[in-house]
Amino acid sequence: MRGIAAGDLDETRFRSWLVQDYLFLLDYVRLFALAAARAPGTDSLGRLVDLAHSTFHQELSLHRAYAAEFGLSEADLDRAEKTPVCAAYTDLLLRTAATADFVEVLAAVLPCMWGYSELGRAIAAGGLPAEPRYRRWVQTYADPGFAALAAWCAALLDRAAEGLPAANVAACERAFATLGHELAFWDA
Amino acid sequence: MRGIAAGDLDETRFRSWLVQDYLFLLDYVRLFALAAARAPGTDSLGRLVDLAHSTFHQELSLHRAYAAEFGLSEADLDRAEKTPVCAAYTDLLLRTAATADFVEVLAAVLPCMWGYSELGRAIAAGGLPAEPRYRRWVQTYADPGFAALAAWCAALLDRAAEGLPAANVAACERAFATLGHELAFWDA
Amino acid sequence: MRGIAAGDLDETRFRSWLVQDYLFLLDYVRLFALAAARAPGTDSLGRLVDLAHSTFHQELSLHRAYAAEFGLSEADLDRAEKTPVCAAYTDLLLRTAATADFVEVLAAVLPCMWGYSELGRAIAAGGLPAEPRYRRWVQTYADPGFAALAAWCAALLDRAAEGLPAANVAACERAFATLGHELAFWDA
Amino acid sequence: MRGIAAGDLDETRFRSWLVQDYLFLLDYVRLFALAAARAPGTDSLGRLVDLAHSTFHQELSLHRAYAAEFGLSEADLDRAEKTPVCAAYTDLLLRTAATADFVEVLAAVLPCMWGYSELGRAIAAGGLPAEPRYRRWVQTYADPGFAALAAWCAALLDRAAEGLPAANVAACERAFATLGHELAFWDA
Repeated sequence: MRGIAAGDLDETRFRSWLVQDYLFLLDYVRLFALAAARAPGTDSLGRLVDLAHSTFHQELSLHRAYAAEFGLSEADLDRAEKTPVCAAYTDLLLRTAATADFVEVLAAVLPCMWGYSELGRAIAAGGLPAEPRYRRWVQTYADPGFAALAAWCAALLDRAAEGLPAANVAACERAFATLGHELAFWDA
Repeated sequence: MRGIAAGDLDETRFRSWLVQDYLFLLDYVRLFALAAARAPGTDSLGRLVDLAHSTFHQELSLHRAYAAEFGLSEADLDRAEKTPVCAAYTDLLLRTAATADFVEVLAAVLPCMWGYSELGRAIAAGGLPAEPRYRRWVQTYADPGFAALAAWCAALLDRAAEGLPAANVAACERAFATLGHELAFWDA
Repeated sequence: MRGIAAGDLDETRFRSWLVQDYLFLLDYVRLFALAAARAPGTDSLGRLVDLAHSTFHQELSLHRAYAAEFGLSEADLDRAEKTPVCAAYTDLLLRTAATADFVEVLAAVLPCMWGYSELGRAIAAGGLPAEPRYRRWVQTYADPGFAALAAWCAALLDRAAEGLPAANVAACERAFATLGHELAFWDA
Repeated sequence: MRGIAAGDLDETRFRSWLVQDYLFLLDYVRLFALAAARAPGTDSLGRLVDLAHSTFHQELSLHRAYAAEFGLSEADLDRAEKTPVCAAYTDLLLRTAATADFVEVLAAVLPCMWGYSELGRAIAAGGLPAEPRYRRWVQTYADPGFAALAAWCAALLDRAAEGLPAANVAACERAFATLGHELAFWDA
């Protein structure tokens, strides 16, 4: 993050992140799709379908375009394999989406969205990097539209969790611990 | 179908169909979403997410607009409850999507798409009804784009089923028996 | 029920029930297994695995033995197919078990257990039928052990539902409406 | 493994394994339960329910008894948390069980059973350790009954995979790669 903010991040490291995040996003689409299938109401069904759709068409396209700027072809992305850290994260997300209560699924989804939004905004607040590709990366996640998305997800979770007994809230807190996987993802 | 083709179908009957099909489509979105989450490859993942998205945004909007022309408000649609026939169909689809093999899910999805496409084309081939609303209904399902969608679904199923042993093919044939629910839906 | 209580139920009808209930129980095992997989705690995990196990080994054996007394071989049972009423019930149960919250799964499971226990006890309270096979049927479901099982399931549901907000309780009430399928099963 | 075979494994290490394997087995029960719910035939349904049941009642009891001999109380086991290595393994198993085809679930299940059976037999063939607790550990997994179980699982997989096209076999091979998690589990 500091390297992106300074605009001097070693490209090899960024390429690794790009590849792994690309593979992560493919499962993130599956996660939104699975959450949509289990959404109790029409509103949340529609919003989660929209998220699956925009992640597949916009986020992944963005990644392919970025990847090209860093010398990675689509074939490079498709040939790549998840690291254990990436696989552990997406397997937890999809296990949760398939077997936990709906509110816990929302809690597991949130750290990724919220984290990127916060990181983008924090870096942008300190000044955008001069390097054009890293600048664009920061702008993507610092975008108010992205912050609004994270806020919507948080609001949906808050609404679903409102008034829940302590045991259910504790289950949500455990699900929110996907945050640890976010940190591990950066460390890797 | 004959009533729609002749353009003289009793409106009360059509209204019942509109309401039930609206409720069916909400679960059909869930079905595509669940199938997407289980799609083995990137292509089928993307296409199934697109189907969930277009069903939610286009098909359901179309239904709401139609419903208005037949004197049904959005509140009427949202207040409605599935008949046992409709519930039996969507529960089978979602049980299949959640527990059967992916190829069987495709087999269960196909009769609805294919059936509407065939019906639309057959009626249109015999001449469009004069009644403008029924005419539009026929045009929707007789549309080459809709036929292409059904053909894509059939091709995806054929590809996934190619070379499967007899026992797996038999399982697909059983899943395809959602066709019986299509007929029951019309009868109801 | 009145025919069983009087001991003069037409055997053809009872045979139909036996066959359909046999097929129902196979999916009931799947239901308990799916609920077990989603059980949040060790206790409920173990109890639901026990239910799947005892339903598969005891209830189904009982059915096969009964069926033999009514002239139905195991091959007859295995060849049989679910009626639409039976399929609609088990598809709803498995759709619920795969996609709803855990507490709703418990609410969907309860009517079957509780209903048979209540029916068995009510008939036994009015005097056991003289016909030995129907007498045994009543004794099975009037058994205090079976009542204890239903009471355990109700207690587990009550505990899981305790303190839930109104929207979640309403979802449980909708899931409990599998009761309607119990009635339809008897009517069929 | 070499430490167990020699009977001189550091107890602290074995205690870590005991605790993690206990937590693993709780999810292994869930895995068998989920596989049972998706089993296409009555035979595999029954066998998978039996596996869930025997893992819950026999394997976990065995672990609790062992744990006591190593100074670990039940409370110690219940308080423990999965390491990332253990969580990555069980999350993959449950994600696979919930979303992959049934034959892939069998492929994912096999490495654990087969591996322990092979290890137990290989160590026993070289002579049982003198240390009584490690000797019993080896005897448990060297047991012909355990080998028969692993052989049954392999035969079920072989039968389900027989005649499958290359793409489906490749998916099974990827699912079988849970083997890597077995190795990581020992390394941890």
